This record gives sequence, structure tokens and C-alpha cells, in this order.
Amino acid sequence: MLYFIGLGLYDEQDISLKGWEALKTSNKVYAEFYTSHLFGTNLSTLEKILDIKVEILSREQVEEDELPLKEAKKTNVAFLCAGDPLIATTHTDIMIQAKKRGIPTQVIHSSSIISAAPGISGLQPYKFGKVTTIPFPEDNYFPHSPYHLIKNNLEYQAHTLVLLDIQAHAQRYMTVHEGLDYLLQVEDILKEDIITENTLAIGLARVGSSKPFIRADKVKNLLKEDFGGPLHSIIIPSQLHIVEAEYLVTVLGAPEELLK
Amino acid sequence: MLYFIGLGLYDEQDISLKGWEALKTSNKVYAEFYTSHLFGTNLSTLEKILDIKVEILSREQVEEDELPLKEAKKTNVAFLCAGDPLIATTHTDIMIQAKKRGIPTQVIHSSSIISAAPGISGLQPYKFGKVTTIPFPEDNYFPHSPYHLIKNNLEYQAHTLVLLDIQAHAQRYMTVHEGLDYLLQVEDILKEDIITENTLAIGLARVGSSKPFIRADKVKNLLKEDFGGPLHSIIIPSQLHIVEAEYLVTVLGAPEELLK
Repeated sequence: MLYFIGLGLYDEQDISLKGWEALKTSNKVYAEFYTSHLFGTNLSTLEKILDIKVEILSREQVEEDELPLKEAKKTNVAFLCAGDPLIATTHTDIMIQAKKRGIPTQVIHSSSIISAAPGISGLQPYKFGKVTTIPFPEDNYFPHSPYHLIKNNLEYQAHTLVLLDIQAHAQRYMTVHEGLDYLLQVEDILKEDIITENTLAIGLARVGSSKPFIRADKVKNLLKEDFGGPLHSIIIPSQLHIVEAEYLVTVLGAPEELLK
Repeated sequence: MLYFIGLGLYDEQDISLKGWEALKTSNKVYAEFYTSHLFGTNLSTLEKILDIKVEILSREQVEEDELPLKEAKKTNVAFLCAGDPLIATTHTDIMIQAKKRGIPTQVIHSSSIISAAPGISGLQPYKFGKVTTIPFPEDNYFPHSPYHLIKNNLEYQAHTLVLLDIQAHAQRYMTVHEGLDYLLQVEDILKEDIITENTLAIGLARVGSSKPFIRADKVKNLLKEDFGGPLHSIIIPSQLHIVEAEYLVTVLGAPEELLK
């Protein structure tokens, strides 16, 4: 049996009881932290609290050596990842290979930024359009696609969840400030009046922790806020329902003019 | 302190360790099951496994009497719901009221159909557009809006997660067959060639359980499948990436012609 087990959003306590039970019956526990990462814990705490021994795999060990599959035909193997499993292509590909080899599988879900960010921002989850990710820019690499996607969502009256680049190997995690700066730079080039200093946005930090920091305000004001440590993400809201607006003002500190 | 605690997708073991710890420190535990419901358990099992006493609240007790708020200023109160908290307006409204009264709050996230359905269907979550819900039709009530939303998403090359109506008070839970029939009836009226018998769709049942039933196939073939008990949902995929197509064929039984 191959278990795909989500560790959830933030620390070693975000796994479900079901996931924990499955770990107890697993003879081998692998984890990958290259697609995402738990910021509220470390390997030794994870191992101690869950009473397991974890082997962390590199992308090559997962995708080329297929280590999660190797022993799963004979024994119970758990494959852990941050968030909800099967969100990354590297996981769906392992599921495909497991089916081809006749290995039984079970997916044990957990919390994910995909549903947590809309919820904790007080925005109706069904009003979100496609998700985008802002990459770290490089020489000759500064895609405008996140800006275009936000524009398309706004035309379609959809909120946008903007994920921010994770370069786990380099311990680089894009901040709310860097993400907003990126969008303002694209605005400077395209001048389509999509993301300006006066655009309402939401900055989110450490969702899933006991002290997440989430603020709704104009971009220029969010750039003055200290969001603290990773992970960060951004939401660009579209038209607000009155209850959404009231949440942003009352809970997330947005300007009262939103309610007028 | 008022804890908003998600029970997750299916049964009493889908709560996180963090949620369980918070329950242990709570002097009063409320739950609402009118916006959703855990199908893999019942109240006595939930109370026994989690070692708590739960008071289930009606919509009136939550929204008018504001019972979750009443004692939270003085003591630790937990407010449980199925899935991830703050997905329903009834929860965000309680959060707004808690802030107004200066009651400290903490949200403990859990698994949600919003991220689990895309993941377990092998579809890239960031390619999903807005979510729609098909309601039970009534006399003079047969909205075409779910059909229009799917059409808009397809034009925008976005997959659509289609939730199906829950009338918990009447123990009515819409099935994949009923949902597809609904869309075919709208097609019969509008004839825009969006949902026909030959459209590829995914039917999902009991996501989060140890035996979810998930099939990808033409609508006419899904109508012959026995999806078993609730909850059900539907996905209408847009254009597929090759890995998505391979997952649908290999894992979810879709016709091999998808790969051609």
C-alpha cells in the first residue's frame, strides 16, 4: 500500500488523525519538501511528535529513482508532503505509476492554501478564478502572465489567489512586498491600470499557524506592513459582496471607505 | 478564545492533531452541520473518538442567538464544522462579530473539497475557474447559472468544480446522476453544445474516505456507473495537459482516446 499523506499548512500538528494512524502502520516513511515546505517545524520535531523516522527525498529520488514506489508493492509505504497531496505534478505522476504497477493507494487529505487562504480572508471561495504564481525574476525572465491572469479574473469578476515563488533549495521564499513590487513593475510597463498603489489587495503570512498575519489594504499601505517570516501569499479581490467587505474592514484592517 | 475548527472531509479522523489539541482545552464544543455534514461518522462516534461532548446548533442558534459567541469571551469555546472553516458565510459572519466584541479567535484548518477534488482527480488546481453549485430544482426554480458558469470557464480554459446541493434538514444530497441530468436538461433548452452525452466529465463520491469512487468518462457512461452513497460532486474538465490526460485514463478509467 502506498499512502499519499498531506501534512497540511504549517507544522507537525496539521496532519489529520487519519494520516497519523496510517503512519503508524507504515514500515517506511518518505517525504518530499521540494514542492513546498512546513515552516512551523523541522525534521526532528516532526519525527519526535509523530514518533516516526522520515527519509527526505530529492526531486531526482522521487521522479527518477521512484523511491516511494519501490517498496510499496510489498509493504506499507507513506509518502508525505506539505499541504494537500496530489497538488503537484510530481505526486500525480507517482499515482499514475502506482496504478500501472498494481500498487494499492490511499490519499489522506489535509489543509491547503487553496481553500485556507480564501476562507481566512473572508472571501467566498466559489468566487475565485484561476490561481497564479509569481516567479523570482531572472535575467531575461520576467513573465507578465500573473498580471494578465489577474486582469482576466477581474473581467470575469473573480478573486485571484496569487502564490509566491518557493526556491526551497536556495531557501528563498518570495514575500508579499516582493510580489506586489513585481506586479507594480508589470503595471509600469503595460499601464493597464490593473495593479496600482491604490489597488485593494490582501497580504497573507503563515496561514495555518496560531498567529497568521493577514491584512487587507491599498497596495501602498501593504508595502509598509511587516509581514514577518514565510510563507506569504497575496489575494487580489474582485467586486466584494457586502459581507466580504465587512470582513475585510472589521477583521483584516481594510479602510472603512470599502463599506460606503 | 473562540476556535473555528475544521473537521475535514469525511469522518471523525479527518480533524488535525492541532484541532484535537484545541478541543482538549475547550470548555464548550459546538458544531453546525447545516452547511455541510460528515458522512463517514455520527455524533456519538465523533464524541467517543475525540473524547468530547458536542452540542449541535441549528442555523437559528448560530445566526440569531449567536451561541458560539456567548461564552467565548470568558472561556475557550470550539465551533466545529465539516470541511475547512470560514468557507460558509455563516462562519465569516461569526468571525466579524467576534472581532467587534474583542473575542480572541483562532482558525484551525482542515481538508476541503475545494482542494481535495482537484488533487484526487489529477487535475492541476491552479487551472480551476470559479466553483458552481447545482441546486435541487423546484417549481419555477431551475436556474441555468451552473451551465453558464461552466461555459465561461471553458472559454477561459478553466476546469470547473461543480458542487451538488445539500438539503441537510431533509437528508437530500444530490447525486452525480442528478447533477449531470440537470446539466443535460439545460443543454436541451439552450443547445449551446456545452454539456452533451459525449462530454468528458468526472464524477466523485466520498472524497476523503478510504474508498472514494472517482470516474472520468463521457457523461452517458457516467450515468451508468453506481457511485454509491454521498457526498457526490462533479468536475467538468477544460483542455487537458498530457499528465492530466494520462491520470484520467490510467487512474480514473477515462477512454484511451483521450491520449491520442
